[in-house]
Amino acid sequence: MRCEVVAIGTELLLGQIVDSNSSWIGEQLALAGIDSLYQTKVGDNADRMKSVIMQALTRSDAVICCGGLGPTQDDITREVIADIMGVELVRDEAIVNAIRAMFESRGRDMSDNNKRQADIPVGAATIKEMPGTAPGLLCPVGDKVIYAVPGVPYEMKEMMLGTILPDLQRRRGAAAVIRSRVLRTWGLSESGLAETLDARLQELDHLGNPTLAFQASGIEGIKVRVTAKTDDEAFAFALLDAEEALVRSLIGDHVFGVDEQSMEVVILEALGKRGLTLAAHETLTGGVLATRMTAADPDMEVFKGAAVRSASQKHAGEEGAIALAALTCEAFGTDAGVAAVAAEVDETRPPGTVYLGLVLEGRQVGATVFLPGDQRRSRDYAVISLLDLVRKTLMRS
Amino acid sequence: MRCEVVAIGTELLLGQIVDSNSSWIGEQLALAGIDSLYQTKVGDNADRMKSVIMQALTRSDAVICCGGLGPTQDDITREVIADIMGVELVRDEAIVNAIRAMFESRGRDMSDNNKRQADIPVGAATIKEMPGTAPGLLCPVGDKVIYAVPGVPYEMKEMMLGTILPDLQRRRGAAAVIRSRVLRTWGLSESGLAETLDARLQELDHLGNPTLAFQASGIEGIKVRVTAKTDDEAFAFALLDAEEALVRSLIGDHVFGVDEQSMEVVILEALGKRGLTLAAHETLTGGVLATRMTAADPDMEVFKGAAVRSASQKHAGEEGAIALAALTCEAFGTDAGVAAVAAEVDETRPPGTVYLGLVLEGRQVGATVFLPGDQRRSRDYAVISLLDLVRKTLMRS
Repeated sequence: MRCEVVAIGTELLLGQIVDSNSSWIGEQLALAGIDSLYQTKVGDNADRMKSVIMQALTRSDAVICCGGLGPTQDDITREVIADIMGVELVRDEAIVNAIRAMFESRGRDMSDNNKRQADIPVGAATIKEMPGTAPGLLCPVGDKVIYAVPGVPYEMKEMMLGTILPDLQRRRGAAAVIRSRVLRTWGLSESGLAETLDARLQELDHLGNPTLAFQASGIEGIKVRVTAKTDDEAFAFALLDAEEALVRSLIGDHVFGVDEQSMEVVILEALGKRGLTLAAHETLTGGVLATRMTAADPDMEVFKGAAVRSASQKHAGEEGAIALAALTCEAFGTDAGVAAVAAEVDETRPPGTVYLGLVLEGRQVGATVFLPGDQRRSRDYAVISLLDLVRKTLMRS
Repeated sequence: MRCEVVAIGTELLLGQIVDSNSSWIGEQLALAGIDSLYQTKVGDNADRMKSVIMQALTRSDAVICCGGLGPTQDDITREVIADIMGVELVRDEAIVNAIRAMFESRGRDMSDNNKRQADIPVGAATIKEMPGTAPGLLCPVGDKVIYAVPGVPYEMKEMMLGTILPDLQRRRGAAAVIRSRVLRTWGLSESGLAETLDARLQELDHLGNPTLAFQASGIEGIKVRVTAKTDDEAFAFALLDAEEALVRSLIGDHVFGVDEQSMEVVILEALGKRGLTLAAHETLTGGVLATRMTAADPDMEVFKGAAVRSASQKHAGEEGAIALAALTCEAFGTDAGVAAVAAEVDETRPPGTVYLGLVLEGRQVGATVFLPGDQRRSRDYAVISLLDLVRKTLMRS
């Protein structure tokens, strides 16, 4: 089963938008065991779009077209697909009504242009997920298929996960089952990980199944992807379970989560289970920690708040960060408080030295880290380092 | 003059790396007035690489291959290009020595694998810039040309700017200059913009130059790209200036910035010029506003801080948001304060209704907005709506 991605939009060719959609789709296809051998970007031009989609259709079983479903004149994906299918576009009044309802729910009127979004090639189906105003399309072409999704990432993702990936799996029929699991680590370098796991990697080279792969992901740490390929789902999961246990025994508590579990979700669960609450003092980190925590805990049941203020001073030791963490506990009435502060630079403390402070039920923990790069990356690293300090302290207490 | 980009690497298809190189190259080509109509990603597979590069060569005058020049066995761009040229690879001992010197200057030994990087197709030239260990290639094929550059961004960029763009310009001879400008808007829908500018769009369809295009960018608003194509740079900028003035006269203060100017940068500049400071009350927005403002104002000279707290209540009107904005001014000692709060839902206030409050030098401004989607997107929209309220109030005061 082969599936190609065609990303549509002149703005992609001109570099005004980086095409991260194709990358995300490629990752999803790989995880689903579907080969994706080519990805093409093409501008909003009917002839060129047609030739690219036609070519993709000759060398693959399915094509995902991303973009060009908007309401304006340069959004012509609908027209091009109808041309390839050799059919007309027909306006679907039920979709017109759905689009109008979407606008009305936002207190706005639908413009006439938006009706174009309800023009559907005869023989095509609309994708049931429709989080925006652009319906996605599922267009059979002989025994192959063209999917069309909007270029807006969250709309595209909802349609991929809800309809397209399951449809591809169904079309492929019973086949090899590929399952993978991502172990998320923090605190080891990629080469450090490779050395720690070297003997096991060599064994797996001989066994051939499961496989391990590393993926450095910046402030998300390094991901270790375990992939098992079998004929049987239960056996695939058994292989994954066994390999996960083995990897964890080798790299220990550097594994902070699995698959989509972020560091903040892990911490919120651990705090929540013990009935503990957290607040943060954010001078150095400027609101980044609060943004992450409130996204994962929107009702603020565990994360109770943050004070973002300009830094009044540099600090000479971890005590400064711990004192601010303690003040934060008091101000917010929480069980735990965290703070990250910049160190005074001198011969023992290079630029980028940051002190971390944590107070957890009266217990005081400090740490010193050296953070790379510019201010923006530095504060992202400070936040993940603080969260990892909370995680490890919780695990050990 | 047409030039295509072929990005090479299985990791690109799998989504392990986002292909930002092609976007950057596309932008450089557009700025140089060279058409780039297709960009393709292909994995490390000789047959597929060959077919993609051959096809690019038939429909364009030049092809830039990015990636696959490293020292390992899956780096086969050199071999594939030699195959297309119908020539052998010959090891260039001068390049071997240059690579060895590069390693020695970093205190490391060159491995035998690295010698492969000095294998050059007969008839090809090496690109004079060589910031890493992989030499770039300039490979004539009839009257066309294939360039090969490493996938490491800074190495690729140095070769593009130093050799490839000048070579493309030379091959093309004197020709068109393309310059573009992006007007950034907030508060209009894409179709609303299209309707407002409809008459002008039709005029431009006849004139052919400059052109206007829209780009919906989520919480970054809608971008209007003006592109002028002339023989002369000064004339191109004159066209852009005239079109910008015309568009602004039609859509007014919905234009908040130009090119890379973000909403927060615009506001920080406007506040800074008047010597005013700002703080935020962040219940609904959970630190997102502080994160954006402190990223743009890292020393917090204008943006003085934020209080992130859990929401104690829903509100029945804009007065609630204004009162919190006023309290925030007092607490932080700033000239301006902002707050966004959720409305009590009833028959007149649908879910997603948010009240915005601004106090600016004692003046009180409220607004009511309906925000789409899930909580995470909703707070992004709340932040940009609040910032736009600050911007418009500053413009009118």
